[in-house]
Amino acid sequence: MPSIPIKPDRLLGDLQHLRSFGARETGVVRPAYSKADIAARQWLAGRMAEAGLEPVFDPVGNLFGLPAADTPCMLSGSHSDSQPEGGWLDGAYGVIAALEVSRASAEAGGPPVAVVSFQDEEGRFGALTGSRVWSGALPLDEADRLTDLEGRTFAEARAAMAGLCAADFVRPDRFTGFIETHIEQGPVLDEAGESIGVVDVIVGIRSLQIRFTGHQNHAGTTPMAARRDAFQGLVAFADAINRAFAEIVTPATVWTIGHVALQPNASSIVPGQADFTVQWRDGDKDRLDRMEEIVRGTAERVCAERTLHLDLSNHVAVPPTGMDDGLRARLESAAAETAPDNWRVMPSGALHDAANVARLMPAAMLFVPSIGGISHNFSEDTDTDDLIRGAEVLALAIAV
Amino acid sequence: MPSIPIKPDRLLGDLQHLRSFGARETGVVRPAYSKADIAARQWLAGRMAEAGLEPVFDPVGNLFGLPAADTPCMLSGSHSDSQPEGGWLDGAYGVIAALEVSRASAEAGGPPVAVVSFQDEEGRFGALTGSRVWSGALPLDEADRLTDLEGRTFAEARAAMAGLCAADFVRPDRFTGFIETHIEQGPVLDEAGESIGVVDVIVGIRSLQIRFTGHQNHAGTTPMAARRDAFQGLVAFADAINRAFAEIVTPATVWTIGHVALQPNASSIVPGQADFTVQWRDGDKDRLDRMEEIVRGTAERVCAERTLHLDLSNHVAVPPTGMDDGLRARLESAAAETAPDNWRVMPSGALHDAANVARLMPAAMLFVPSIGGISHNFSEDTDTDDLIRGAEVLALAIAV
Repeated sequence: MPSIPIKPDRLLGDLQHLRSFGARETGVVRPAYSKADIAARQWLAGRMAEAGLEPVFDPVGNLFGLPAADTPCMLSGSHSDSQPEGGWLDGAYGVIAALEVSRASAEAGGPPVAVVSFQDEEGRFGALTGSRVWSGALPLDEADRLTDLEGRTFAEARAAMAGLCAADFVRPDRFTGFIETHIEQGPVLDEAGESIGVVDVIVGIRSLQIRFTGHQNHAGTTPMAARRDAFQGLVAFADAINRAFAEIVTPATVWTIGHVALQPNASSIVPGQADFTVQWRDGDKDRLDRMEEIVRGTAERVCAERTLHLDLSNHVAVPPTGMDDGLRARLESAAAETAPDNWRVMPSGALHDAANVARLMPAAMLFVPSIGGISHNFSEDTDTDDLIRGAEVLALAIAV
Repeated sequence: MPSIPIKPDRLLGDLQHLRSFGARETGVVRPAYSKADIAARQWLAGRMAEAGLEPVFDPVGNLFGLPAADTPCMLSGSHSDSQPEGGWLDGAYGVIAALEVSRASAEAGGPPVAVVSFQDEEGRFGALTGSRVWSGALPLDEADRLTDLEGRTFAEARAAMAGLCAADFVRPDRFTGFIETHIEQGPVLDEAGESIGVVDVIVGIRSLQIRFTGHQNHAGTTPMAARRDAFQGLVAFADAINRAFAEIVTPATVWTIGHVALQPNASSIVPGQADFTVQWRDGDKDRLDRMEEIVRGTAERVCAERTLHLDLSNHVAVPPTGMDDGLRARLESAAAETAPDNWRVMPSGALHDAANVARLMPAAMLFVPSIGGISHNFSEDTDTDDLIRGAEVLALAIAV
């Protein structure tokens, strides 16, 4: 088995350097197609070239670093754009880990490794836009009509870096598989004191926007028995789904009511309308289906019992994506060797580019801990030892 | 027993005329101290003079119509300002019913009856401002510092009608008691098909603003067991107080969570903060106390169980005001004679000027039905027969 000895100082130095392409010195503000994002990509392209890779920007700005030999090879990477108040590791870590493993492998006479930084993972135009377009999940002409919060279209945004970009997309058959390294963005590894998570599934997401319409009334003169209080309907609904979900979920299942808007939302008026969103995530499509039956059935029952009118809208269903068994086995062996008794198999509760790339080729994912579970925040961080260990696991899995 | 035969056409004609002092022909928009409000008061003052009453505006714009004789007499009335989208009867009915009974009594050789239209009952500057100042519950210099939504002070607002106003307040010892006639603004009489409600108590109001602070998290990567979800805390709280209140309330007790604000209020983020208001009303101070113990105790228990931080603020406590036994007995007799088997004794769930006037003299209240329980709305209405019946009950109670 060839060994690929990564150089921790080079990994950490590049990560720190990438951090400097941000609008605030203390964090990273690098939305897709911003000047900082394009500058970061150009610097990355230069580092790829220095590592012996051919940098190629595809038509939407995904940046590939391709080995000279055109025999199919592994691809690794993530994204280098960030949230408006995002931290320094979300995405960037997976890109730099891939770059380090690629150049370390080249130095050690190991297998060629291609590197990628996808564009607009954080969703200035939707979410995971670069990998969605490359994977064929989103046609380019549809993507071009997406708009950001300022009303700029995706077509206009990507025109800002058109001079850098190739006319054609990189052919997926150049690659034998894809491994994405990423921070967990949750508390599981950190709380367990573990260094590595090997992802078995990127969970599916369902959500429904729900409106309960009752009757707006004076909070002093309307007896309880005469009320059709939309907020009390929401309380009954939330309590009932908690009880029903408890019968069918696993510890990895999550559900959230994160958005609530009452009308007229005044302390002396019985709420006549409650709008809220229920979102639930799980790795198993059947469980997502059963949870949806509970959500719909409970909403109907609560509204029937309380004479509320029910409206359901904006149904979202992102299917779960299982990781490739072969790649996952290689990651598990590498984790067991690098961090014995200090790793676990776990689902990814967040979406990642790997879910799109899995449409094209075998794909897998690797997590390192997020201190305190914090992400999308300037204070996002990971122990240096874990950043190094994650790259070592990637190198070992690729070297097999 | 002297009879006071009211004239229905005059009562309804004046009510319709008062309606015309509004910004929209279909309803009434007459906030305190607006041009429409002042014009309505000037017209009312003229009608009082025509009825043989001396119109007197006090320093805050409360309009009294005083009989010539200075022997103490009954006072009746309500308010003539309205909500921004208020209807034609809220307040206005009680003022015109008092005016009609006063002039009918004078015509019939009955007892003198003074009439009042209080200022700013609807709360452009607080609530029930005119009667609060007159009753001494709110010192005038404090009232003068109150501001409306446009930042105008009460002092500035009342200066707009200073030329009309007397330098001194009307002496309360001119009056032997106060009866306020008002629409119910709730559904109880209308649903029961009853014509008259005699108020036994104007309920007390308590409210608390509550903040649950948990931890804002990613809705995909944060396991349920690791969450400190402020909204789920609110659901548990609302459900628990419903159960605990059910053990101690009467059918007239009401409680409301009408205002809810989550932070950051996004469908993919576990809510880190929930601000909400709990308000409860009852005619019995002891029950209000026991409900407050439940609210505070439940909030503390829920926060302890869920590791949420609890903040309580803006405690409001308006005590219940029992109506005067003697006046109430006169209203009950009059109701039994005017609407046999078609009236009830009931609490007022809304605040009224009578609660303030009760500080100065015996006070009582009389309700007529609100069709569909609707008020504070252009569609507010009451059957003509009930409007007449209410004035007849008032006349009979005063004639005793």
